Amino acid sequence: MWRELQPIGRHPDSGGYRRFAWTGADRDCRDWFEEQARGRGLSYELDRNGNQWAWLGDPAAGDAVVTGSHLDSVPDGGAFDGPLGVVSSFAALDELRSRNARFTKPLAIVNFGDEEGARFGLACVGSRLAAGELTVERARQLRDGDGVSLPQAMEAAGYDPDVIGADPERLARIGAFVELHVEQGRALDLSGDQVGIASAIWPHGRWRFDFRGEANHAGTTRLVDRRDPMLSYAETVLAARREAQLAGAVATFGKISVEPNGVNAIPSLVRGWLDSRAADQATLDTVVSGIEKAAREYADEHGVQLDIVRESFTPVVEFEHALRDEIARILGREKEADLKVPVLGTGAGHDAGILSGTIPTAMLFVRNPTGVSHSPAEYAAEDDCVAGVTALADVLEGLACT
Amino acid sequence: MWRELQPIGRHPDSGGYRRFAWTGADRDCRDWFEEQARGRGLSYELDRNGNQWAWLGDPAAGDAVVTGSHLDSVPDGGAFDGPLGVVSSFAALDELRSRNARFTKPLAIVNFGDEEGARFGLACVGSRLAAGELTVERARQLRDGDGVSLPQAMEAAGYDPDVIGADPERLARIGAFVELHVEQGRALDLSGDQVGIASAIWPHGRWRFDFRGEANHAGTTRLVDRRDPMLSYAETVLAARREAQLAGAVATFGKISVEPNGVNAIPSLVRGWLDSRAADQATLDTVVSGIEKAAREYADEHGVQLDIVRESFTPVVEFEHALRDEIARILGREKEADLKVPVLGTGAGHDAGILSGTIPTAMLFVRNPTGVSHSPAEYAAEDDCVAGVTALADVLEGLACT
Repeated sequence: MWRELQPIGRHPDSGGYRRFAWTGADRDCRDWFEEQARGRGLSYELDRNGNQWAWLGDPAAGDAVVTGSHLDSVPDGGAFDGPLGVVSSFAALDELRSRNARFTKPLAIVNFGDEEGARFGLACVGSRLAAGELTVERARQLRDGDGVSLPQAMEAAGYDPDVIGADPERLARIGAFVELHVEQGRALDLSGDQVGIASAIWPHGRWRFDFRGEANHAGTTRLVDRRDPMLSYAETVLAARREAQLAGAVATFGKISVEPNGVNAIPSLVRGWLDSRAADQATLDTVVSGIEKAAREYADEHGVQLDIVRESFTPVVEFEHALRDEIARILGREKEADLKVPVLGTGAGHDAGILSGTIPTAMLFVRNPTGVSHSPAEYAAEDDCVAGVTALADVLEGLACT
Repeated sequence: MWRELQPIGRHPDSGGYRRFAWTGADRDCRDWFEEQARGRGLSYELDRNGNQWAWLGDPAAGDAVVTGSHLDSVPDGGAFDGPLGVVSSFAALDELRSRNARFTKPLAIVNFGDEEGARFGLACVGSRLAAGELTVERARQLRDGDGVSLPQAMEAAGYDPDVIGADPERLARIGAFVELHVEQGRALDLSGDQVGIASAIWPHGRWRFDFRGEANHAGTTRLVDRRDPMLSYAETVLAARREAQLAGAVATFGKISVEPNGVNAIPSLVRGWLDSRAADQATLDTVVSGIEKAAREYADEHGVQLDIVRESFTPVVEFEHALRDEIARILGREKEADLKVPVLGTGAGHDAGILSGTIPTAMLFVRNPTGVSHSPAEYAAEDDCVAGVTALADVLEGLACT
């Protein structure tokens, strides 16, 4: 399976993946998913929000056990974030069939659309729409960097954007959703385990900082006459690091857009995006308000106007304890010890987090030896990937089979 | 004349001009130039480097007096930087004709191609090529942000890129070049004069700072595990301001490019361009080496690799004293006082600066009440523009007529 998926959307220079929602690379990934589903005799379903489903058994029977992840990527992302969960889902099904498992519940594998939000700036669009966490009005207003709206992009890719929206009937058929994912940190590497179970997803959000100054000639404008927004931006980047460090949280300015972005022009606008996360809400509030306060002071100092917009926010997600404990029991039993599989929190958002408000969800993590993620250097050892498939097969068997 | 030129390449959102070399907007400006030339019965000439010439009299006669400027713009530039010089040249010729001036030397108006360097990153390409200050090899390697090379862009615009190169015969026909330009500073405003004469152009250069770190997940990577190049970049931006302030120079980071530029990804690469200028070479060296030293320290601190490339450099340009003094005499005589027209230095580069190594050149500046330049807010009062035309007509009459 990996062999066919590997070249899709891979950038020849960086070696990273550029599989953005509703682009050609995304379509190729989707075609691959449909082939995998049909090749296994599963019934293929495309939902109204562009999420793909592959069903074993009758979806209408209810209490289905669903696994899967996403196939899209961040810019120059790695091979594992997303695809490992989808590939492992198909592999786990193959494993269960080779074990002659007897399914008592319907099973489905899902590929959620636009998880990374790399194109339209909002993550987990497919699951958010389905769960009703993203209104149709707001979704219609999403635009990519070229000004293309989400409906236009969906239409260009051959999907009907008029039917997007909350999909409670579809989600009501699901009894449990388990997402396997490569770990995006080094907790398993440090504890020496191959597979872990998620406890919670840190609350996190994205804020856009618009620093507006005055475009002017870089050679002839005296320093005292300048209103240079790049200076306030730079000071804010450093403030974000300081505040995060103080609070034991994370804060990152990883995306920037500058106008006019000319070598010999003082910028009129520097737009920077802050991504910040912390173990709990209070800490996150402290960090972000500290950064905002510092940014406003810097902007005032340089005669720069500052607007801050919270573009997205996801509160803390505690995965359902009953499902989590059951999975721990299943995996612990296999390992002939109780809870040998560590339970860990994560700073990353996932479709499983979005859906956890609607249906019981859980996550499995596969060890990442370097912790590197969202990068071409993202990696998981083959042994650990196999251990992930086995664990996922065990969990699906425990949940869906007699 | 202004009326036809005004809408070309104007961006509806910003109100600024985007007239980049060899684009459609540039072609429209060039068509305008050719019409203006032919409409006045001037002989039109396109040279091998894409510079446009409009001749009154026989170019081959030699010792020609040439005036003009450029029509291209920086991103979201103003209406005056460049076009004021070209429009004033045609207006000054009209004025001389209405004075029934008798020309004893050939006169030409020129529009130099790609002065701003907004597309290919190198300023004054047209005059640099003609003067032999830019080799054909290096010009062929210039690429824009989309990877289009200069020869490809020229070819796409219908020009022959195979003939570019030094053009000493053409320049040898010129006895004096006078460029009128809107001032890009407030010296005339502060002194209360409408028109000034350039003494010198500050030495200036552009340096590219490539900060290379490690792309990683912004949510899950611990701060201590990060190699985030945005932090070193931010510190360097602030260091540049400090060093410039200390030395009485200017230093600007106005252009940036980030990879992968995703909200939830720590960047792998932050590329920032430094533009720095000072009144003399020693000061500029001090400023730039101070910034480089600080940047290297910050990069080391964050485990970031730093490469610094000097992309362009122009040493100090002292305009020829004999021509400058003659122009001062001409304008002083008109004003019935010696040297009433102030002589001032400038931090901006110009084609006149490039050509000053080959032929006698001079510049006239027209007052800019705010000093704002390279911005849609760039402005010159109509009165001052008229004063500029009159001064230019006086100078051309003094130099080219009996």
